[in-house]
Amino acid sequence: MKLYDFELSGSCYKIRLFLNIVGVEYQKEKVDFVGKEHKNNKYLGLNPFGEIPILEDGDLRLRDAQAILVYLAKKYDASDTWYPEDARSAGQISQWLSTGGGEIMNSAGARLVKILDYPLDLEKLQAGARRVFGILDAHLANREWLELGHPTIADIACFPYTALAGEGGIDLTPYANVRKWIERITSLPRFVPMPGISANS
Amino acid sequence: MKLYDFELSGSCYKIRLFLNIVGVEYQKEKVDFVGKEHKNNKYLGLNPFGEIPILEDGDLRLRDAQAILVYLAKKYDASDTWYPEDARSAGQISQWLSTGGGEIMNSAGARLVKILDYPLDLEKLQAGARRVFGILDAHLANREWLELGHPTIADIACFPYTALAGEGGIDLTPYANVRKWIERITSLPRFVPMPGISANS
Repeated sequence: MKLYDFELSGSCYKIRLFLNIVGVEYQKEKVDFVGKEHKNNKYLGLNPFGEIPILEDGDLRLRDAQAILVYLAKKYDASDTWYPEDARSAGQISQWLSTGGGEIMNSAGARLVKILDYPLDLEKLQAGARRVFGILDAHLANREWLELGHPTIADIACFPYTALAGEGGIDLTPYANVRKWIERITSLPRFVPMPGISANS
Repeated sequence: MKLYDFELSGSCYKIRLFLNIVGVEYQKEKVDFVGKEHKNNKYLGLNPFGEIPILEDGDLRLRDAQAILVYLAKKYDASDTWYPEDARSAGQISQWLSTGGGEIMNSAGARLVKILDYPLDLEKLQAGARRVFGILDAHLANREWLELGHPTIADIACFPYTALAGEGGIDLTPYANVRKWIERITSLPRFVPMPGISANS
């Protein structure tokens, strides 16, 4: 299995994290994201949307971090707990897959402005991120995990760009339940860190 | 089953369309989207993201059109063809669920500017929509359906705001494969129209 990867990408990181959790061996192909290698013809051939991560497993190639999480959970999660097959669980988890690829990407955008000088509207992105962190915080007021009472790919999908919010200039101090949830995730067995996100020791 | 619905919403329409395809009876609760009823306290209690559709089925409440499609397919699609359970199919379909809730929403945004005067950047939205229609068109050059060689919830998720592109000021003439795909969808058994999208007679 091959992951087209950039170490500082939270979207790639969520795949690395989940691959480690389910214990699948894979090979990394480093993509020069800063040099926009993912926008060149070779990479547009692999993913016309010009984004990473991209996963190759045998003759299957998948784009989109959330789609990759769905595939990996269904194929390699022997515990069948990270994305249970019943309709109710799948529907509940899918809500947060949309959020992880959607509203939470405001935080990713803010971080791109701060660390790579992307010409985006920082204030609008930060406001969008704060709005979703407020919603997450309220949701987590009486829950340890986003759905089902245990960790699922919903948590994995929403985690990286929440934990990296500080790098986009967003202070998580007001979101106590979110911060406790981050601690729970960073304490999971087989957790792996990335630059900006440490394991909870 | 209850769907919180607005007739002119393409996101609500994809649920109405799929409910009709799988043959499930449901009740509609009309939401005054133009009057921003979905942003009032009652609706923020049902979905803190302040969006429709929302689906209630017994004691389960789901937000997000794509999550609702996943739930309905797994629970009510007796043919098991609209969202097959194997990892490979689910991964492939999930890519387009992300696209349907993501890049294609540029077209939805352009339409909100055109028909409801939303203060959004029309040119940027139209450019984003044209980019994804170009990708869709290339993908459909040698395919009748987005994945698996038959209709799936991937098609349902991406269809409405593609078919409604004209209402956002986007001409689909350059995208011949997309137009043929729209014709295929509007010819499906149990297809239902909405204002702006007719059945293919």
